[in-house]
Amino acid sequence: MPTQETLIPLSGWRRKLYIVIYEADTRAGRIFDMALIAAILLSVACVMLESVSSIRQRYGTLLTVLDWLFTLLFTIEYALRLICVHKPMRYVKSFFGIIDLLSILPLYLGLFIPESRFLADVRILRLLRMFRILKLSRHLGEAAQLRKALMASQRKITVFLVTVVLLVIVLGTLMYVIEGPEHGFTSIPISIYWAIVTLTTVGFGDITPKTPLGQALASLVMITGYGIIAVPTGIVSAEIARSSPPEPSENRSATRLCPHCFSEGHDWDARHCKHCGGQLPRPAKGEVS
Amino acid sequence: MPTQETLIPLSGWRRKLYIVIYEADTRAGRIFDMALIAAILLSVACVMLESVSSIRQRYGTLLTVLDWLFTLLFTIEYALRLICVHKPMRYVKSFFGIIDLLSILPLYLGLFIPESRFLADVRILRLLRMFRILKLSRHLGEAAQLRKALMASQRKITVFLVTVVLLVIVLGTLMYVIEGPEHGFTSIPISIYWAIVTLTTVGFGDITPKTPLGQALASLVMITGYGIIAVPTGIVSAEIARSSPPEPSENRSATRLCPHCFSEGHDWDARHCKHCGGQLPRPAKGEVS
Amino acid sequence: MPTQETLIPLSGWRRKLYIVIYEADTRAGRIFDMALIAAILLSVACVMLESVSSIRQRYGTLLTVLDWLFTLLFTIEYALRLICVHKPMRYVKSFFGIIDLLSILPLYLGLFIPESRFLADVRILRLLRMFRILKLSRHLGEAAQLRKALMASQRKITVFLVTVVLLVIVLGTLMYVIEGPEHGFTSIPISIYWAIVTLTTVGFGDITPKTPLGQALASLVMITGYGIIAVPTGIVSAEIARSSPPEPSENRSATRLCPHCFSEGHDWDARHCKHCGGQLPRPAKGEVS
Amino acid sequence: MPTQETLIPLSGWRRKLYIVIYEADTRAGRIFDMALIAAILLSVACVMLESVSSIRQRYGTLLTVLDWLFTLLFTIEYALRLICVHKPMRYVKSFFGIIDLLSILPLYLGLFIPESRFLADVRILRLLRMFRILKLSRHLGEAAQLRKALMASQRKITVFLVTVVLLVIVLGTLMYVIEGPEHGFTSIPISIYWAIVTLTTVGFGDITPKTPLGQALASLVMITGYGIIAVPTGIVSAEIARSSPPEPSENRSATRLCPHCFSEGHDWDARHCKHCGGQLPRPAKGEVS
Repeated sequence: MPTQETLIPLSGWRRKLYIVIYEADTRAGRIFDMALIAAILLSVACVMLESVSSIRQRYGTLLTVLDWLFTLLFTIEYALRLICVHKPMRYVKSFFGIIDLLSILPLYLGLFIPESRFLADVRILRLLRMFRILKLSRHLGEAAQLRKALMASQRKITVFLVTVVLLVIVLGTLMYVIEGPEHGFTSIPISIYWAIVTLTTVGFGDITPKTPLGQALASLVMITGYGIIAVPTGIVSAEIARSSPPEPSENRSATRLCPHCFSEGHDWDARHCKHCGGQLPRPAKGEVS
Repeated sequence: MPTQETLIPLSGWRRKLYIVIYEADTRAGRIFDMALIAAILLSVACVMLESVSSIRQRYGTLLTVLDWLFTLLFTIEYALRLICVHKPMRYVKSFFGIIDLLSILPLYLGLFIPESRFLADVRILRLLRMFRILKLSRHLGEAAQLRKALMASQRKITVFLVTVVLLVIVLGTLMYVIEGPEHGFTSIPISIYWAIVTLTTVGFGDITPKTPLGQALASLVMITGYGIIAVPTGIVSAEIARSSPPEPSENRSATRLCPHCFSEGHDWDARHCKHCGGQLPRPAKGEVS
Repeated sequence: MPTQETLIPLSGWRRKLYIVIYEADTRAGRIFDMALIAAILLSVACVMLESVSSIRQRYGTLLTVLDWLFTLLFTIEYALRLICVHKPMRYVKSFFGIIDLLSILPLYLGLFIPESRFLADVRILRLLRMFRILKLSRHLGEAAQLRKALMASQRKITVFLVTVVLLVIVLGTLMYVIEGPEHGFTSIPISIYWAIVTLTTVGFGDITPKTPLGQALASLVMITGYGIIAVPTGIVSAEIARSSPPEPSENRSATRLCPHCFSEGHDWDARHCKHCGGQLPRPAKGEVS
Repeated sequence: MPTQETLIPLSGWRRKLYIVIYEADTRAGRIFDMALIAAILLSVACVMLESVSSIRQRYGTLLTVLDWLFTLLFTIEYALRLICVHKPMRYVKSFFGIIDLLSILPLYLGLFIPESRFLADVRILRLLRMFRILKLSRHLGEAAQLRKALMASQRKITVFLVTVVLLVIVLGTLMYVIEGPEHGFTSIPISIYWAIVTLTTVGFGDITPKTPLGQALASLVMITGYGIIAVPTGIVSAEIARSSPPEPSENRSATRLCPHCFSEGHDWDARHCKHCGGQLPRPAKGEVS
C-alpha cells in the first residue's frame, strides 16, 4: 500500500474526503468503514442468493436490481477514492486498488458474458481491510509473522512443489499406461488430476484404479502422499518455531534498571551497566527464578 | 465453574446433599458420581438404539419408557442441584449448568417436535466432569496445557481461518462460473461447500469437476490445501513445543560448584573441576535424578 | 520378553534346541530364523491368494494343503518353543508367545467357522521379530525412541481422543436430526460413523449431507477436523523434538582424551580432566570449529 | 554425478562439445540448455495431447511425427553426451544418464507395445537438471538440506512404514473376514488396498464397509490413521528444526571481548563490560549485521 504522505492532499474538501474514506480514526471515517463492510457483506449475500436457482426464479428481478445498486455504489466509491488522492495510479496499482476494481467490473462484464456477473463475489476480499479498520493490530502482527515464516520457507516450499509436480506427472503417466481409458483414466492430463487428488489425500473417488497393478501403484502413491505431507508441515513448523519471539530470555532481566543512566535490559549476572559502566544494584534473591 | 465458597450452604440437609452431589471425596459422593456416569452412558445408549429403525420397531415402547425414566431422573437431579446451592443462578449459568439443562430439555421438546428428542444425546458431554470425578488430575493438567497452547495461538488461528474462509468463497465462485449447474455445482453456496470439502482434503466425491479448466483449478485448490494444512500444524506445534517444560539436561548439573575456583557447570559425574583441577565434593544422593 | 537367564535350560539337547530356536548368533540359529521368515512370508502369500476367488477356484486344493502344511509346521515350532524353555508359561504369556499362538489357531478354528481361517494372516506380525533377528539394533533404538515419545504424550493424546469421541457423538446426533434417514443418515451410530469419516478428512462419500443446513454443519465439521489434526501432530512433534538426542554439544569435544586416565567427553574449554584432575593437552587450533 | 575431472576430455572438438553440452557458463552452453528445456517441455506437451482421444483423432499423425522428431533429437543428444566424455559408462550409470536413456526408449519400445510410448513422459524428470542450469544454487542448498533431514530420519521412517504395512495387512484381513466379498471386500489384497486408502485418509469411497461391525472397525482405523499421521510429521519437523541453522542471536555478539577482564558475551550495543564496568572498544562497522 502506498505511504500516506504522498497520497494525502494537503487541504480542502479532498483532504476531508480522504480522511473519511481512507482513515478510520474520525467518527465519519468509522461510520463510512462500517457502512462499507455492511454493503460488501450484503452485496455478496445477494450474489450468492441469486445463484440458487429456486431463489432466482422467485426474486430474480429484485436481486438483479440490488446487484446493480451495489455495483453503482462501489463504482462511485472507487471514483471518490481516485479523486481524493494525489497520485491516483498508485492507488490503482496497489493490492486493494486492484481488488476494488475487480469488485465492480463483473457486473459490467455480465452484460456481455452473463455467467461472469457472479464473479462480483470476489469483493469479499475487500474485507481483508477489516483487520486494519477494526484496529486489530495484534492480529495484523500475527499475520505479518505468519507471512514472514512462509516467506522464509519459500525456497524450501518451491523445491517441494517442483518435486511434487514432477512426481505427479510421472505417476499420472504410469497410471494411464497401466489402467487405460477403459477404467476412467481417459488421458494423461486426467491421470495427473487423479494423481493430485490421491497424493494430496483428497480422494474424490470419481476415478479409481481397477486393476491389481493399478491398485498396488495407487497404494504406493497414497503412502508416499501420507509421508511427504510431513515435509511442508515440518518446514513451516520449524520456521514458525524459529520466528516466534522467544519467551523472556532466562538470563535477561526485565526489571533491572541502571540507577545511573536509567537503561533497561541488563542480564541477571551483570554487575555493571552495559551502557554507562555504573554499578548495578544486586537483584533481590527471590527475583532470580 | 463457580467457586465453592459462595455455593456451599453452611449447614443442614442442604449441606449434606451438596457434598453428595457436587463432591467426590466422601463415600456417598463417589457412589453418586459412579451411578450418574452409569445412568448417562445407559441413557445415551438407549437414545442411540432407538434411532436404529429395526430396533425401534421391536423395542420401541421399552426404549421410550426408559428415555422418560432417565429424563425424569436427570430432571430430579437438576432440581436437587438447584436446591442445594446458595446461588442457583450461578450454577444455571455455568458451563455444566447449561449442559445439564440441555440434557433434559430434548425429551420435553420432543412432545412438540418428535425428531428433537434424539438431541438428548448431548448429555454425553456431562462426562467431561469425569476427569474431575475420577481424580485424573494429571490428565486435567495436560488438558489445561493443551488449552493454553491453543489459546496462545488463537490470534494466529483466527487470521488463518479468516484467510481460509475468504479463499473458499472466491474459489467456490470461480468453480461455479467455470463448471456451472450442469456439473453439480448448482449454486455458489454449494460450490463453497465443495471448496471446503476439497481444501480440507476430505473429498467426498459427491460433487466433482468435469471440465478440464475446472479440474485444473481443483488441482490447484488441492495442492494449496495440502500446503496450508502445514500452517495450523506449525502454529500449534511451535506453541506446544514452547509451552512444554524442557527436560533437565541429562548430564549437566546446575548446582555443582568448584570450592577452589568457584566455577560452575560441572557434569554430574565430574570428580575434578574442569578449570582448576581441584577435587569436587560428591553430589548428594538424592540430587542425581 | 522374558529375560534369558530364567529361560535357558542349563544343558543337554534342550539347551541346543533353545540356542537354535531363540537365538540368532550361531549358524544353525541364523538358518532357522531365515527359514522361519521365508515360511511366514510364503504362508501369508498362500492365505492372500486363497482369498482371491479366481485363484481359489483353480488352485483351491493346493492352497488348502499348503495352508495345513504351514500350520502344522508352526504348530510343531510352537511345541518346540514350549519344550526348550524352563518356564513355558512365561513364553506363552509374552507378546510373541500370544502372536505365535494366534498364528496357528485360525486354521483349526476354520474347521468350525470357515471364514475365520483367513485370520491366519495375522502371523505376519511374527515378522516384528525380524528387527532383532537381522541385528537391526539401530532401528530397534529408533523404534524405542518413537515408542518413548508416544508414551510421553499418552496423556495428552488420551485427552485429545476423549474430546474427539464426545465431539463426534454430538455432531453425529445433530446430523441425524438435521438430515434424517431419508438422506442416508439412517441412525445415530451411522451418523457418528459419518462424523468420524468427515472429521478425520477421510471422506468416503458413501453418506453425504443433502440439506443446506446439513452442508453448513458439515463444512464446520471439516474445518474443525482440519484444525484439530494440528493438535496430535503438534503433541508428537514437540515430544520427538524433545526426546531426540541433541547433536554433539557445541562445547563438548568428541576427540579430547585425558592422557592420565584415558577418559573421554571433555569440554572444549576444560583445562583439567574432570575425572582424575590431571592436566589436559590443549586442543589443536583447527580442531575447535 | 561423476566428477568433472575424470570426464572432461583434455582438448579438441570433444572438449568444446563437452563444454556446450554439460556446462552452462558459456554463451553456447546456455543456449544449448535453454533449447533443451524448451524441447523437453514441448515433447512432454505433445505426449500429453496425444493421450487425449479427441485431439489424437484430429492431429494424431502430426503428433506422432513430432514425437519421433523429439525422440530422434534426444537420441542424437544422448549419443553426443556419450561421445564427448572420457568414461562414457560413468555417465550411463549416473542418475541423469539413466533418466536420459529412459527418455528415448519408450518410443522405440512403442513399436512393439503401443501403449508404452506414452512413458516418454518421464523425460520431464530431466528438468531436475534445471536447478543447476539456472544457477539456482540457493534452491539447491535448501534441497540438499531437506534431503539431509529426510536421510537423518530415514531409520525412524522405515520403522514407521514397516509398522504401517503390518498394520494394514492385519486390518485388511479383519475387514475381509468381517465384511466379505458381498460388500465389495472381494479378496484380502483388495481389503488391504482399502485399509491403505482409509488409513492414509484418502477415502476414495469405491469400497466402503456396510455392516455395523465393519463400520466400527473402520472408525477405529480412521482415528488411528488420523493419529499416526502425526508420527512422520513429528519426525520430519523435529529433524528440519534441528538441521536449520539457527538465526544469529539478534543482540548478542559472539566476538566482543572486554579488554579489562577478558570476559565474553557482550551485547552489540554494550559500551561497558557488564562484569567489571571497563569501557568496551566499539565494534567495527561491518561487523554489525
